[in-house]
Amino acid sequence: MIEITLLRHAKVAGPAALYGKTNIEAQIIENQKIVNSFSNSEQAFDLVVSSPLQRCYLVAQQLSTELNVQLVCNEYFEEMNFGLIDGIPFEQLVGDNASHVNAEKYWSLLEMFWQNPAQTTLPLAESLAEFNQRVTKGWQLLIKQLIAQSAKEDNCGKKILLVCHGGVIRMILAHVLALDWQNANWYQGLSIDYASTSKITLTVLANHDEKSSLRVNYIGLPLSSMTGKD
Amino acid sequence: MIEITLLRHAKVAGPAALYGKTNIEAQIIENQKIVNSFSNSEQAFDLVVSSPLQRCYLVAQQLSTELNVQLVCNEYFEEMNFGLIDGIPFEQLVGDNASHVNAEKYWSLLEMFWQNPAQTTLPLAESLAEFNQRVTKGWQLLIKQLIAQSAKEDNCGKKILLVCHGGVIRMILAHVLALDWQNANWYQGLSIDYASTSKITLTVLANHDEKSSLRVNYIGLPLSSMTGKD
Repeated sequence: MIEITLLRHAKVAGPAALYGKTNIEAQIIENQKIVNSFSNSEQAFDLVVSSPLQRCYLVAQQLSTELNVQLVCNEYFEEMNFGLIDGIPFEQLVGDNASHVNAEKYWSLLEMFWQNPAQTTLPLAESLAEFNQRVTKGWQLLIKQLIAQSAKEDNCGKKILLVCHGGVIRMILAHVLALDWQNANWYQGLSIDYASTSKITLTVLANHDEKSSLRVNYIGLPLSSMTGKD
Repeated sequence: MIEITLLRHAKVAGPAALYGKTNIEAQIIENQKIVNSFSNSEQAFDLVVSSPLQRCYLVAQQLSTELNVQLVCNEYFEEMNFGLIDGIPFEQLVGDNASHVNAEKYWSLLEMFWQNPAQTTLPLAESLAEFNQRVTKGWQLLIKQLIAQSAKEDNCGKKILLVCHGGVIRMILAHVLALDWQNANWYQGLSIDYASTSKITLTVLANHDEKSSLRVNYIGLPLSSMTGKD
């Protein structure tokens, strides 16, 4: 059995914006809360996998050290690339302080994107389909590796901590639940809190096929620091 | 804003079986853990709503007393009725000790039901469509009442604790996320742990319409006592 705990990074140190490829850091104090919670919990991991972006990788390094577990960086699990709008503070795009030269155009594109993410590609951004393909490919490769390694070591249990992003977690959950990743409700309605965890259990069948069962339930970290959606 | 925390009852005091209308109790010690967790948390509620079945209602009564909040019983949120197979221990239906007169027939029906719950109705049971209609009707009535009450009291915030069942929670989550409740993956893949909580935030718009945003993330109770699916 393979257990993968998806951990979303902590709240970022910056104004509200759509952060994708933008390499903003998480708040140091919030990272520390994550590390403390994992240290105090009884969870053990065989491997930490992390998105290369700082808001994930820094806390993944701390967790790797603290829990004495190997850390691997994996680019497949980077957040979606939101192109030209990535990282621009919302206050520059809407409201009284909207100072950006393309404020009106970008805000209208963002509204279209939120309404219908599968049909709207932001300027110079990754499309939702490309993002879906990248994340599910990364997921499948990771699972394949874990299964191969388990078989080699004759060790059928593997516990992985995957530190990544809201969009990546949502895409993985849709994949393991075989839900329609194009459904706008999955993006508008489902909130993945900062520092929250979702646990996925994969039962490896004899033919090395995989059957996944998802547990969205809590696994012991009282880290509900969420203030809004994504 | 209306916040509804869905709490699944604790582990039941009985052998593994498909428990629906069967009025089995939860384990007393597990109920106490739930009460302790809520007492120690900073969560406050305006109302506790509970399924009438003992595995929910007893802990709801304890929580109502402990948190000093009104308790209301609501039959719409009873678990699905599994008819003749409801509550029969699985060990009577399969394996070396399969003693039930209809063991083979019932087990084969159960397997069909698990593969395709929307197309399979167990003998004398509620169909998945009937169950869906009942739960979503109960949900809509509850929300309507809460909105009306908020408007009357000029109080736009309501926090509700709804103590209910795995099937009911799954149906409510599918409804608020506008997902296809007939999709077998939603039943096979998604695990709702005993004593787990899922939080739904409804933003009430000016026209008294409702817009829901679901937070499946944890809200502070380290109660991961789950041993299997449902």
